[in-house]
Amino acid sequence: MPELRRDPITGRWVIIAVDRQKRPTDFLRESVAPSRRGICPFCPGNESKTPPEVLAYRSGGGANGSDWTLRVVPNKFPALRVEGELNRTGSGIYDMMNGVGAHEVVVETPDHASTLSDLPEKRIEEIFWAFRDRILDLRRDTRLRYILVFKNHGDAAGATLEHSHSQLIALPVVPKRVQEEIDGGRRYFDFKERCIWCDIVRQDVESGVRVVLETDHFLVVCPYAPRFPFETWILPRHHGSHFENAEPATFHNLGWVIRTTMRKLDRVLERPAYNAIIHSAPIQEGAMAHYHWHIEVIPKLTRVAGFEWGSGFYINPTPPEEAARFLREAGSQ
Amino acid sequence: MPELRRDPITGRWVIIAVDRQKRPTDFLRESVAPSRRGICPFCPGNESKTPPEVLAYRSGGGANGSDWTLRVVPNKFPALRVEGELNRTGSGIYDMMNGVGAHEVVVETPDHASTLSDLPEKRIEEIFWAFRDRILDLRRDTRLRYILVFKNHGDAAGATLEHSHSQLIALPVVPKRVQEEIDGGRRYFDFKERCIWCDIVRQDVESGVRVVLETDHFLVVCPYAPRFPFETWILPRHHGSHFENAEPATFHNLGWVIRTTMRKLDRVLERPAYNAIIHSAPIQEGAMAHYHWHIEVIPKLTRVAGFEWGSGFYINPTPPEEAARFLREAGSQ
Repeated sequence: MPELRRDPITGRWVIIAVDRQKRPTDFLRESVAPSRRGICPFCPGNESKTPPEVLAYRSGGGANGSDWTLRVVPNKFPALRVEGELNRTGSGIYDMMNGVGAHEVVVETPDHASTLSDLPEKRIEEIFWAFRDRILDLRRDTRLRYILVFKNHGDAAGATLEHSHSQLIALPVVPKRVQEEIDGGRRYFDFKERCIWCDIVRQDVESGVRVVLETDHFLVVCPYAPRFPFETWILPRHHGSHFENAEPATFHNLGWVIRTTMRKLDRVLERPAYNAIIHSAPIQEGAMAHYHWHIEVIPKLTRVAGFEWGSGFYINPTPPEEAARFLREAGSQ
Repeated sequence: MPELRRDPITGRWVIIAVDRQKRPTDFLRESVAPSRRGICPFCPGNESKTPPEVLAYRSGGGANGSDWTLRVVPNKFPALRVEGELNRTGSGIYDMMNGVGAHEVVVETPDHASTLSDLPEKRIEEIFWAFRDRILDLRRDTRLRYILVFKNHGDAAGATLEHSHSQLIALPVVPKRVQEEIDGGRRYFDFKERCIWCDIVRQDVESGVRVVLETDHFLVVCPYAPRFPFETWILPRHHGSHFENAEPATFHNLGWVIRTTMRKLDRVLERPAYNAIIHSAPIQEGAMAHYHWHIEVIPKLTRVAGFEWGSGFYINPTPPEEAARFLREAGSQ
């Protein structure tokens, strides 16, 4: 059973994945690329290589058959497990609980080589419907308090399998960074009685300098104080704290917005590795006037991030106004 | 002039290094190793390749000669600059100030190939005296509020030059992560009237399971809730909030402690890339009962960190008790 441990100083929870325990010699070195040979467990026909699906979109045929367009399966090497009691406990100054939660993989397409830049808009939209379906199911388990939905694309971003997929980790705690964002939003709301993200949308549309693209439903910007070069945020124009409660028209538009944004990043940065994360409110809490769901995309361009994650202090060589200009002017065909 | 910009949601300051501006095509890709050819600007005889030194330890001869054992120079491509006014300003919801500060490089040895594992203890001790000397000098500038001292070792950790060196960035703000640590220490102190790091030292010495090594002056441990495999903390046994105010005997012992710790990491992890950071209290503030300076070392072993820096949520495959056992049992000769 993995353990959730709390840092006694900052209160940050980490997962110590004792089941995936590695000896020193097991560590992947930068110089050793993971093998791409062998059978891809996410390709059609290899359904038996993954645990049985928890959700699939298919035109016909039965569960775990090969005729799907999208498939959600439990992670074969989960960071957390659904079974068991939370069992909060401590030892002196240290606090821990059992690693109860869920870790699922969304296989986004049957085609091994497709990416979010290649898939039809409708298929991309369906990925977001799948996230929503899984969140609505998992939130019925009241032990779970937060669901992280994220995508690692490319070796350099930590993807261990090439076939396009996202992940979903349901946690019994709210991650510290999420709580910080919520607290920041609350402080601003207490002061102004307005949502900070709604104000960002307003001010950035007005100035225009950091805008990548706009639709009726979304604003895509390079944020004012980005940690990383070409960091890109996808902000819904309509206020809402929970991704899973967005309107169908919003999901519909997201297909085009994601595809176009990814094509622009691919064009300007020559198909970079990236991480994308949905920022959304804790699943057991009601609608919040002070929090605004959104998506953050971080291309992995430099290695010079080691110091940054150790210190929490970021040096970014690319002004977001420059990055936005390159992305705005890039084609998306 | 670089800009310091504040994220309006979380309050995190970032440096936008407009002077080092990069076009999209300039980005270093993982597949392109930086060239190691050419003249090393940190080797003796090449003193003219760096800006003039601000500090040097040498047996004789004049400033900027080649007979030094340690040399501190301004960074040739600084993230911040000493000249100018802070000029705090804003535009709507966004806050910024000029990137006033200092960015210096400590060339730790004249020998191009030596590392902290090879250098004599006395030379390692001198590196810490140099940090102290520079901090005592820079803190006289009351615009500066925090000094980050850190070392990137190896390509994968973001080092762009091979010759062993550390860096020092003096900032006009206290980084958010530092403030969080201080706030966490204060909360614990308010509750218990004890320093949390002093309690960590006590409890970890007693249990012994996370101890790497102990001396009269230091405890080296793998922390209870580490973000990264083999994350290692070097904790002074005697309470003190400011690194630069430590006793001479503490600096003296640090030579042996660093050398031994690095040799153990080299032995177990086959000479890993790593980041090391001195965590110390803000330079303009007085002694704090609730903060305890220390050093954190993070070997760079996996690439699977992309998601983690985006989300602030960490999954660590190696229990610290396992890591500490490997390091404890490893030789250091």
